[in-house]
Amino acid sequence: MSTPKRQMHLNLFMLSTGHHETSWRHPATTPELATDIRYYTKLAQMAEGAKLDSLFLADALVLTPAIKYKVTAGLEPFTMLSALAMGTKRIGLIGTVSTTYSEPYNVARMFASLDHISGGRAGWNSVTSVGDVTAVNFGIDQHPKHEERYERAKEFLDVLKGLWDSWDDDAIVANKETGIYTDYDNKIHPIHHQGKHFTVRGPLNICRSPQGYPVLIQAGSSEAGKDLAAETAEVIFTAQDTLEHGIRFYADVKQRMQKYGRSREDLKILPGFSPIVGVTEAEALEKKEQLTQLASIELGLVRLSNLFETNLSQYPLDSPLPLDELPSIDKIKGQKARFQMFSEMVRKDNLTIRQLILHTTSARGHYTVAGTPEYIADVMEEWLVKEAADGFNVMPSYFPGGFEDFISLVVPELQRRGLFRTEYTGRTLRDHLGLKRPLGKVVQPV
Amino acid sequence: MSTPKRQMHLNLFMLSTGHHETSWRHPATTPELATDIRYYTKLAQMAEGAKLDSLFLADALVLTPAIKYKVTAGLEPFTMLSALAMGTKRIGLIGTVSTTYSEPYNVARMFASLDHISGGRAGWNSVTSVGDVTAVNFGIDQHPKHEERYERAKEFLDVLKGLWDSWDDDAIVANKETGIYTDYDNKIHPIHHQGKHFTVRGPLNICRSPQGYPVLIQAGSSEAGKDLAAETAEVIFTAQDTLEHGIRFYADVKQRMQKYGRSREDLKILPGFSPIVGVTEAEALEKKEQLTQLASIELGLVRLSNLFETNLSQYPLDSPLPLDELPSIDKIKGQKARFQMFSEMVRKDNLTIRQLILHTTSARGHYTVAGTPEYIADVMEEWLVKEAADGFNVMPSYFPGGFEDFISLVVPELQRRGLFRTEYTGRTLRDHLGLKRPLGKVVQPV
Repeated sequence: MSTPKRQMHLNLFMLSTGHHETSWRHPATTPELATDIRYYTKLAQMAEGAKLDSLFLADALVLTPAIKYKVTAGLEPFTMLSALAMGTKRIGLIGTVSTTYSEPYNVARMFASLDHISGGRAGWNSVTSVGDVTAVNFGIDQHPKHEERYERAKEFLDVLKGLWDSWDDDAIVANKETGIYTDYDNKIHPIHHQGKHFTVRGPLNICRSPQGYPVLIQAGSSEAGKDLAAETAEVIFTAQDTLEHGIRFYADVKQRMQKYGRSREDLKILPGFSPIVGVTEAEALEKKEQLTQLASIELGLVRLSNLFETNLSQYPLDSPLPLDELPSIDKIKGQKARFQMFSEMVRKDNLTIRQLILHTTSARGHYTVAGTPEYIADVMEEWLVKEAADGFNVMPSYFPGGFEDFISLVVPELQRRGLFRTEYTGRTLRDHLGLKRPLGKVVQPV
Repeated sequence: MSTPKRQMHLNLFMLSTGHHETSWRHPATTPELATDIRYYTKLAQMAEGAKLDSLFLADALVLTPAIKYKVTAGLEPFTMLSALAMGTKRIGLIGTVSTTYSEPYNVARMFASLDHISGGRAGWNSVTSVGDVTAVNFGIDQHPKHEERYERAKEFLDVLKGLWDSWDDDAIVANKETGIYTDYDNKIHPIHHQGKHFTVRGPLNICRSPQGYPVLIQAGSSEAGKDLAAETAEVIFTAQDTLEHGIRFYADVKQRMQKYGRSREDLKILPGFSPIVGVTEAEALEKKEQLTQLASIELGLVRLSNLFETNLSQYPLDSPLPLDELPSIDKIKGQKARFQMFSEMVRKDNLTIRQLILHTTSARGHYTVAGTPEYIADVMEEWLVKEAADGFNVMPSYFPGGFEDFISLVVPELQRRGLFRTEYTGRTLRDHLGLKRPLGKVVQPV
């Protein structure tokens, strides 16, 4: 018997009508369903039918003028994931919550609650939020600087882990005879956290959840983001535009884990991956062209102006993007890693503004592949084997069609090759990802 | 044809194993289910089967030592209500959220999301939270004072209403031809709120929800609480221990509404009501005695010491409670109205500490009636007819048995008398309660 192949992990990045910037204009999407929980339940059930590890919801705490042209508003992650938990049985449920604009006690509790409700399927994508536009909804004039956000994020996580471990697994006694409900004195622990950003006494007001705590996910790919992930994350979502960049990032992060005494297996790296699937190559290219035609140059200008923190509408659309007039990366307050990736794209091919918009309209810079199921499976296998990925964050251009193509054509091909599970073997998201359940405050036996 | 009778509204106050302080020790409860969403889904479905208006979850942002003897920890309201929304179709879903320890932008958004997910069934019980024990979980040494909490609560509500109205109902255009998704310039409005406690620009990042905004509920019965409710609430939950007190409170609040230009019908008063139902009176009294036997004096002492903000364990259990050694009401930081009610109970019957504990163990001071279905229906009818109530916040001593008795025996009796609906006639919680949908920022037609 041969050794079983290393298998990949697949997460569905669920996003309104799709990852193409204006997917809501695609003839096969229904933008009227963007706040309809039944629509998302069906997508979640499709993903579960294909045995995906998890689904994921991004988030932003602001409404920007882009809403004029684009579906950027929708259901809030916790309420949505709890509802989806009831319509599914096995698939992991990952929500995004900001460490900059939330109270740690509330967040710890909501994730523990979601983990109970879903039977151990919760995951937390922690973000530090982007830009002053968010700050103004929270009584702050200026969004905290990159370094301070990361410092706060680290402390936030410490508090949450403390709260999640504040009940031992066996704290509830519920002895009707004696009237003792919990072993409060020995098995429930205040945390007495006093840090720079937070003071939280604890304990949490909910018992320890099936997974101990949710799977911890991060999406920052800046230097500070990579360090925080190497120290604390169990999954990374990242944007890597080429295999070479993917390999470099993967090696970099896994190597950084050593200094924190962590094993490489304790962190799964899932680059964004946007498949455009056709039964033939010609069909796939035709679908890709249809998506490119949907692009809105106006919206692309807004998106890139935000990313580069520069008003790009002052420059001609069809001239090369003037890199030397952009701020330097240390001045960028928002997404540093994405800023760098897009700058490199421009530098490499001397792209015009219009070309950069079109090139990134379908998945915002994430790796996009159009082709037959076999070709797409080849690419995914190559990323897995060459250690650019432990799996993928699947970002269909439009829903449900683009995702339907992926699960009906590509997933079976991956399964035939032994690269993806054909059935769930565990119950929790930690089971699916092969991650250990945190032990909690275990007292050594005498 | 005679005029149809005025009907009552019924809300189920859902609480782990029941409202009796130590209901988890009752032989017919299963405390192991206290974090099991399937258990609550069944209770919700029972309530919906009986055509109740709504169900309600209380909340606290702290774990106190009472957890040693009592189920005070459980699922978080938003995650729980979203899950319950998926297992029910018509019943209203009311959650408690503190205005002292939450960010208004986040809360506005979660309620709008819950209202979308449930198809217009969300309600918000706003509380200001109690005591310094909560403050220590949120980086604050001292819980804000009563007046300041109410001031903040009022501003919080203003911000939320602004955010809920920040999208017009017809803001989404979704024209695939033109590429316009929303009429951002004319139908989505930043709120530019700048107040003493909050600065929030808006607009909200979710479109207007089926009810416009959730039904607004308050539970404070202090002077400040009554004023705030008369000005802003659509439902009041209150504890009234006698019919006379109920009538006085009802008249007081409805009268206060005048100065805010509100009609009496715009606010429904639902006193807490804990029924102990027996097929015969003897059976009912036997059930009541069984519940009294479950009482924990130790726990009662903790509860009353918290309420009176005085350590009562220094006094003999079987001597009258020393009212003159308690703080005066203006010194009380927590629940002023409850403090007053309990003080009056003691004064009236010269109760010992033990007697007060036993008297309030089954529903924490809420009106408790043991008897046959007919007798209980008589009492409810009397409260309705004499204008002590527009309906009741039903608080079964234990779940599911105590609630099962109520819906299988008392509700049909109320229905026979024409005092309660036999079928839902509307879809939303506002429909059930006969409350208007807020208009939003409607521009008058030219």
